[in-house]
Amino acid sequence: MTDPPASAGDVRGVRAAVLGTGLIGGSVLLRLRDADVEVTAWDPDPETRRLGRERGLHLVDSVEAAVAGCEVVFLCGPLPTLPGTLLRVAEATDDHCVLTDVGSTKGGLADFARAHGLAARFVPGHPMAGSDRAGLHSADAALFGGASWVLCPLGSAGLTTFRRLTRLIMSVFRARVVPMSADEHDAAAALASHVPHLLARALAGAVHRADLRDAVLTLAAGSFRDGTRVAATPSDRTANMLLGNRERVLDELGRVSDFLDELAGALRAGDRAALLALTEEAGAARAALTERSLRPQRREFPVHGAGERELAYLLGLGAAGGHLTGCRVEAGTVVYTAHVPDSAH
Amino acid sequence: MTDPPASAGDVRGVRAAVLGTGLIGGSVLLRLRDADVEVTAWDPDPETRRLGRERGLHLVDSVEAAVAGCEVVFLCGPLPTLPGTLLRVAEATDDHCVLTDVGSTKGGLADFARAHGLAARFVPGHPMAGSDRAGLHSADAALFGGASWVLCPLGSAGLTTFRRLTRLIMSVFRARVVPMSADEHDAAAALASHVPHLLARALAGAVHRADLRDAVLTLAAGSFRDGTRVAATPSDRTANMLLGNRERVLDELGRVSDFLDELAGALRAGDRAALLALTEEAGAARAALTERSLRPQRREFPVHGAGERELAYLLGLGAAGGHLTGCRVEAGTVVYTAHVPDSAH
Repeated sequence: MTDPPASAGDVRGVRAAVLGTGLIGGSVLLRLRDADVEVTAWDPDPETRRLGRERGLHLVDSVEAAVAGCEVVFLCGPLPTLPGTLLRVAEATDDHCVLTDVGSTKGGLADFARAHGLAARFVPGHPMAGSDRAGLHSADAALFGGASWVLCPLGSAGLTTFRRLTRLIMSVFRARVVPMSADEHDAAAALASHVPHLLARALAGAVHRADLRDAVLTLAAGSFRDGTRVAATPSDRTANMLLGNRERVLDELGRVSDFLDELAGALRAGDRAALLALTEEAGAARAALTERSLRPQRREFPVHGAGERELAYLLGLGAAGGHLTGCRVEAGTVVYTAHVPDSAH
Repeated sequence: MTDPPASAGDVRGVRAAVLGTGLIGGSVLLRLRDADVEVTAWDPDPETRRLGRERGLHLVDSVEAAVAGCEVVFLCGPLPTLPGTLLRVAEATDDHCVLTDVGSTKGGLADFARAHGLAARFVPGHPMAGSDRAGLHSADAALFGGASWVLCPLGSAGLTTFRRLTRLIMSVFRARVVPMSADEHDAAAALASHVPHLLARALAGAVHRADLRDAVLTLAAGSFRDGTRVAATPSDRTANMLLGNRERVLDELGRVSDFLDELAGALRAGDRAALLALTEEAGAARAALTERSLRPQRREFPVHGAGERELAYLLGLGAAGGHLTGCRVEAGTVVYTAHVPDSAH
């Protein structure tokens, strides 16, 4: 089931800022520009700002200059910089300005924003797209098309902001907005992204130390190339991601290790039946990645007064593996359309 | 550095047989046919034979009918069937007929062939190419172009056979022939292929058991998709491969687990410097996969009387990560050209 095209009408006249123009921020910037959003950007690196200007992008020399008068600001810097940038931007913009980020872990920043009274303005986000490249020169306006883009509304007070941002992301990026709690995002992302990075590093690292290193590289075909591709991600980015979701990553890594131990145990015992059962169990999850069927869903809530119900619906939708396909506000009613797995209730 | 095209002159008039026409055997068959080799094939499954005939391939109803009068036979059945088929084919062909296989582990079959006096005729082989699909309908004549194809000469008595097969594989399949000992192949393949399959299954299996299974699948982007692709391989094929190289796979898995434990330890301790050092160490092996530079090499040996030196050269070449680009026999001399990593001696 394909998603219907979102209307581009939502973004006319919107003023946006992108702070940090590496691979992800640069791709956000290019896509906003292509969608005729009036977008200004900033990057701490003067050389990157120069490169951006050469490409005809509107790069300015300070955070404050970039966000002045904006209705939406994308925080796209490295994870450790986000809390500081968030406070600085909140200070420099008015309450109507929507703030979001694109970091790969969400719990810490969500707690920080709540503690600083920003739950109504800040919607933590995470577009599930990327590449093993880095930098503005690798940015790609089409990076997010069809990708899942997690948004984490921080309580019912943040729903107005969430709805505005959802419409913008659908219409500009053609992404599948997945509403989730920050904690559930971090648990799911640990398995969907962070642990795979650890496995890829462990495999590549073991090869690096192997006596037959060069022979292994010569023999490396699909399974090794695929299994280590993300080991080419810049180390800084990988370390930030892992450290930013440490407990969850270690928990989920434990579950993967448990499965690996079962596989190794069956192999050590030469127990073909057990080995087959485990490989088939694993194959089922992989098959679901491409074969899972989704059904459409529609829910309505009053714009005011049903915030907790609306919030519960949204967080439940993401936890069940669903995503939004539309978000309209009309005559006092917010109408969500969504796709949910057939297995969900 | 690209490999020079091999001459097609070597294969004119050659008669070949392919036994077992699944994904790999079928691809071998299609490529031999396209190269105008006179090729006959057999598969134990009548339906597969029917499908092959419909595609204009020469499928016959018995092993003996397929191999009659052949100069080279490719054994492409499942690993557990290979010893039996090898004996049957050796019986049905004369000493001039070269026998090889395409199985993903080599040590067991090499020992078996030696024990049955077939070291001069049988050259264990392993083309490092594949797909997560299966069956003749997924076969692809171009599957081996540019791939590494391991051949394991079983002692100096097998060198004449090795040279003939090397020329055939270079000229027909445009593959990079990697000469290796069967044991070194199994050690290298464990890291290059078998352990990656285990990791992919463990990751997919842990997701299958996760509370947030559907949310993980929704969030799954590049790292998860890549890291689990081979988990879609038919379970039977994966189990055969792992059981056929059990000790090596468990050894190498131990090394990967050690690296993973170091990564997890650094993460648990919040030791950013240690985490960065490990991720960079791993990144180096991954970078070498695409950036490694090779230099050309040329070696000559008398066709007769220097077998041990020639064998030692060949096995050393593969262990160092090199591959052959040419093998000519002229005026009593065998001339090998090769590419070797700059790091090798």
